Parts: sequence; C-alpha cells; structure tokens
Amino acid sequence: MGLGTNRMEAFSDGVIAIIITIMVLEIKVPHGVDFATLQPLIPVFFSYVLSFVYIGIYWNNHHHLLHTVKSVTAPILWTNLHLLFWLSLVPFSTGWMGENHFEAVPVFLYGLTLFATALAYWILQNTIIRSQGQHSILKKAVGRDLKGMASLILYASAIGLAFVDTWISLAIYVGVALLWLIPDRRIEKIFGSASA
Amino acid sequence: MGLGTNRMEAFSDGVIAIIITIMVLEIKVPHGVDFATLQPLIPVFFSYVLSFVYIGIYWNNHHHLLHTVKSVTAPILWTNLHLLFWLSLVPFSTGWMGENHFEAVPVFLYGLTLFATALAYWILQNTIIRSQGQHSILKKAVGRDLKGMASLILYASAIGLAFVDTWISLAIYVGVALLWLIPDRRIEKIFGSASA
Amino acid sequence: MGLGTNRMEAFSDGVIAIIITIMVLEIKVPHGVDFATLQPLIPVFFSYVLSFVYIGIYWNNHHHLLHTVKSVTAPILWTNLHLLFWLSLVPFSTGWMGENHFEAVPVFLYGLTLFATALAYWILQNTIIRSQGQHSILKKAVGRDLKGMASLILYASAIGLAFVDTWISLAIYVGVALLWLIPDRRIEKIFGSASA
Amino acid sequence: MGLGTNRMEAFSDGVIAIIITIMVLEIKVPHGVDFATLQPLIPVFFSYVLSFVYIGIYWNNHHHLLHTVKSVTAPILWTNLHLLFWLSLVPFSTGWMGENHFEAVPVFLYGLTLFATALAYWILQNTIIRSQGQHSILKKAVGRDLKGMASLILYASAIGLAFVDTWISLAIYVGVALLWLIPDRRIEKIFGSASA
Repeated sequence: MGLGTNRMEAFSDGVIAIIITIMVLEIKVPHGVDFATLQPLIPVFFSYVLSFVYIGIYWNNHHHLLHTVKSVTAPILWTNLHLLFWLSLVPFSTGWMGENHFEAVPVFLYGLTLFATALAYWILQNTIIRSQGQHSILKKAVGRDLKGMASLILYASAIGLAFVDTWISLAIYVGVALLWLIPDRRIEKIFGSASA
Repeated sequence: MGLGTNRMEAFSDGVIAIIITIMVLEIKVPHGVDFATLQPLIPVFFSYVLSFVYIGIYWNNHHHLLHTVKSVTAPILWTNLHLLFWLSLVPFSTGWMGENHFEAVPVFLYGLTLFATALAYWILQNTIIRSQGQHSILKKAVGRDLKGMASLILYASAIGLAFVDTWISLAIYVGVALLWLIPDRRIEKIFGSASA
Repeated sequence: MGLGTNRMEAFSDGVIAIIITIMVLEIKVPHGVDFATLQPLIPVFFSYVLSFVYIGIYWNNHHHLLHTVKSVTAPILWTNLHLLFWLSLVPFSTGWMGENHFEAVPVFLYGLTLFATALAYWILQNTIIRSQGQHSILKKAVGRDLKGMASLILYASAIGLAFVDTWISLAIYVGVALLWLIPDRRIEKIFGSASA
Repeated sequence: MGLGTNRMEAFSDGVIAIIITIMVLEIKVPHGVDFATLQPLIPVFFSYVLSFVYIGIYWNNHHHLLHTVKSVTAPILWTNLHLLFWLSLVPFSTGWMGENHFEAVPVFLYGLTLFATALAYWILQNTIIRSQGQHSILKKAVGRDLKGMASLILYASAIGLAFVDTWISLAIYVGVALLWLIPDRRIEKIFGSASA
C-alpha cells in the first residue's frame, strides 16, 4: 500500500531534530560571570558533543535505511517508534553523565542507552529486510553487518568496564562514534551499482 | 477546495513529535550518582513508556484517519486542533503520575486525560465522516467503532476505580494500549479491497 | 523567483507547532497529590486554553495567508519572522498571567503581546499585498480588513482596562478569540469564485 | 545520487525552528506581578531579540545556500550538522549573557559562539563549492565572500574588546546583524541572470 512512507520519515526527522536540540537544555545557564563558572560545564559540554555526534550518526544512517523502504508495514512503524524511544532517552543519560563528571553509574547508564539504541536500530533494520523478502536490497547492502555487531559488543564491554575505569568506557564510546562517522557507504554502493 | 491537507498533516505531525519528545524532560536528571538514585525514577520511567506508546498509537491512527480526508474544512481543522490540545496535556499528567508513584488523584487525572483525548479523537473521526457525506469511506472502515467505544468505557471505569485500587486503573491503561497496538487494519482493509 | 515558498511555510509551521506545545511546559507538575494541589493550576490551565486557541487561530489564518503568496521576497520573509517573534513571546506572557492569577500587570502584558502579534500579522498581510501589485488577490480577500482593525482596537482597550478591571480585559481577549474562531472565509470565498 | 537533499533541508529547518523557539524558555517567568519585576528581564529580552535576528539570518542564508546543492555528499551532510551544532549553543550563550546583564565573560562567550557559527557556515559553504567542481554556481554567487570575511574579523575583534568595553562588543554584534539583514542577493542575482 505504501501508506505514509514520507510521513514516517518526516515524523522521525521531527523527533530526532527535537532530541538533538533539547539536549542543549541540559547545559544549564550558570549563575556566576567568570571563566571559573564555566569550568564545571566542561564535562557537560563534552557529553553534549559526543551525544550530538551520535544523534547525527543515527539521523544519517536512519535516512539511508528508510530510503530502502517501499511500503510501511505495522512492524516497521513500531520498530521505528521503538528506536525513537531509546534515542529519546539519550538527552537524559547525557545530562546525568555530564553533570556528574563521568562517575561510574552514569557512564554505565549512558552505555546502556547507546546499547539499547543500537539494538533497536538492528531490530528495525532486520524488520525492514524481512518485509522486503528474499533478494532484499538492504540485506545486500548491510551484508553480515559487521560494524553493527562490533558496536553492540563494544558497548557491552564499555558498560561492564565502567566499574573498572570509566575512561576506558568513554574511549570506547568515542571510538565507536568515530567508526560510524564514516557514513554507511554500503547502501550507497549498492544503489550506485543498481543505477549503473 | 482541498486547502492544505498536507499542511494540516505536517502541523499535526510536528505537534505530536514535540509532545512525544518533551515528555522526556519530565524525567529530571537526578543529583546522586549511584543506582539508588535511579530507583525513584522507575515509576517515572514506566509512566513515560506507557505515554510514549499511547502517543505512538495516536500518531499511527491519526495518520490513517487523515489519509481519508480529501479536503480540510473548518470543522475538521478545529476538531483536529482540539485533539492536539488534549494530547498536549499528556506530558503533564504523565509527569504528575510518575513523580507521585501512582497515587490515586494523579492516576485519576491521567485517565481523565486519556478519556478526553479518546473523545476528541472520536469527535474528529465523526467530523470527517460527516464531511464525506453518505458512502463515507471512513464510515465503512470504522464500522460501529467497537474498539473506540470500548476504550471510552474502559477509561471511564479506570477513572472511577482509581479511588478503589490504582493498580486496577493502571492495568486498564496498559490493557487499552495493548488493544490499540494492533494498528487499525480496518481502514487498510477497505483501501486494500478498493484497490483490488 | 519563487525561492522557497514551501520552505517558509514549513519553517513557520515548525515554529508555531513548537510554540503551541512548549506552552504546556509552563503548567509545572505540582508536588502534592490531592485535588487541592490542582486548584492553583486552574488559572494556569485557563490561560493555556486561551493561548492555545489564539495560536491555533494564527496558524489557521497564516495558512490561508501564505496560500496567496506566489514568490517569497525578502520583505515577506522578514515580516513573517517578525510575526513569529511576537508569537514566540505568547508562552511567556501566558505563563506569567496564569501563575499570578490574572493580576493587572500580567494581564496588561498578555494584551500587549496579543496587540503586537496582531500588528505583526497586519504588517505581513500588507507586505504580501504590496508585493502582489494591483489587483492583489489577497487585497480583494481581506477588503478593508474590518476584523483585523477591530481586533487591534479591542486589544488596545483591553490593555488600558487591565488597570481598571482585569475581568473586562479577559472578557475582551476571549471575545476576540471567538470572533476569529470563525475561519477567514473571505479568502476562501474569493478563491472559490475564482475557480468557479 | 541526490540522496535526501530535501530531507537534509527539512531536518535543518526543524533544528533551526526549535533553536529559535526554545531560546524563549530562557526568559523565565518572574515571580512578582508589577513592572519592577520585568526590569531585570530587559537585558534578557534584548539578548533574545538579537539572537532571534541572528538565527533568522542564518535560516535565511542557509535556505539560499542549500538551494545550490544538487546532491548531498557525506562532507556536506557533516559540515551542515557541524553548523547546526554551533547554532544550538546560541540559546545557552544568549541566556547567560542576558541573565548577567552583559558582563565581560558572557559577552565574550556570546561572541565566541557567533564566531564559531560563522566559521562553520563558511566551512559548509566551501564544502558545497568544492563538491560542485569548477564553474561552481555558488562560487560565482559568493565571489570573494567579503561579507563573510568581514563578519569573522568583526566577531574576533568583539571577542577581544569584551574585556575593554562590553558595549563596543555589543555594538559590533548588532552591526554585523544589520549587515546581514540585507538578504544574500548575490546568489539570487546569479540565479536571476541564469534564468534570464
């Protein structure tokens, strides 16, 4: 039926745009007026940058993902909302981690949010693949999805390591972000060859 | 005239996207850094999940509903805004219920908000049907609207039962959400047979 | 050139959707759990309803207004942003009036915001008319714009009367809203006859 | 490939619409009810007006800029998100400057935010030019980009001068805004001559 592919895309974009923007509200305007006042905001700022990049990556990949959807089915619609749900918790986890200067439990929770979001993305991806039947264009594009799998394992490790050394966890969060900053050329490649 | 069907859809989507996202601002970043700090947030989180699902359901059904609208009349436009008004109160009711760990009055108010929203949806639906004249495609799709009617009755019961046992009310809220999680295939069916 | 009529419309819709929705954040979640806790929120709620209706009216009329724009010129773009600026102050005025239970100065400021918004709308309307040259379709539609003029005079009166009796001012705000709830059929009429 | 030019535009619009609107949340509803209560809000209000104009300018110029993009490449997508990142910090800087009545460090930080945003815009512009190859339509339109360069130099001066006299810095911020209020006719001109 193709009922509302555009509307699902527009709605997702709206939610992601709001998430990426309201996150800045967690950087509370401080009461002092000198540079020292800004110092406790440095971890808050760093957390904001990291989450901004993550949301940007999700928006970008989501954009490629939905491009392969021809018609929105109920499972696609709900697994998409499920992804948006976990994304919507990123501002909370970001705020808590930043305000508490990377203490163990907030760093753990931040990783848990990233893990759940990545899992939700993976579920959405598989739901789309299943709806496309055999010879799925997306299936060909993601292949065995090594990058997606690696991210899940890395997040899981970072979650555990938060109680050993939070800096290792943070290094992993930054590393996975860098891994994804390279946009998902796999889908572009397939499309490119299809149109060739 | 068909003045602005798309714009009404886009505006509604924008409002619903904002409602579903600002709700997360009610989960206030706590001040402690251990797991115990998160414990009082559990009912807040559960309320958020429930309301996220409800807003998702409304977005989904609204999406099917507007698809049957050929031209936006003033009554459609205003009954649509009326629906958005009640939806916009969901974050408030959710926040109050979650923060107070499901006390009677907040649970009552949450049900009242759900009831008013469902009523507003029903009014919008009937306004669209009336504007389509006899042989309304939407009329055929919703039939006698048993699910809509049942929801109203269930919400009304839950509102009253909040003063007896809030857990019964909460069970009803969860139950009605599950009832609607199955997307409104009635409209899809009619469209499907029309295009067959 | 017709550069970006759709984008101006989409951007305005986005801003208006956010304004109408963040207003609800001014209804702060209270700390008690009984009905008495909700009582001080009644004027906040009433203010919210009134402003929601006003923003709805502006969205509706703006929607008709932009429909007559063929190409966006710099003056149209900036008078449109000027309108959005004043609209964006409505949540503040609404919150202040509601929280202070309709004291004189907040009621005065609320009226001032409505007056400035109405003036900004009038400026945008005239800018569009001027850009359309003689035989402007919008010019024909609004005629001598009696309703617009009456609103400005009524707001001005209400602003002054806030220091005599705030209830008169509030009655005027409600009255003008009712006056506009009837959508602007003047433009629809012209279009209708043009397409006949 | 032209993958998602519209979606990038829509997403940017969404983010900019949210930024321009949530800024108003920094004007906190005061607790008193007389005119004296509003007095400390005057610098907050002035800061809001200034930033509203700046965001409006960016939206307007961004709108012209993206119009020259035929296909979104990864570098365009990421330099665009980079611009949105700095824009998203404007509400914070605005709030801090307004609340502290134009003290030196907040005025300095406000300028720094404007400088970083202008630099991000310049980077996006150059990325688009590079992707268009020789004979870039945008290259022709911006020429040697004197206005962009002048703005960067003026912001840098204002940042330094904040520690000498904040009023000079503020005068520069207002001056640069006025400089840009004249929309970017350079691109329009090229397009105009191209379509002639």
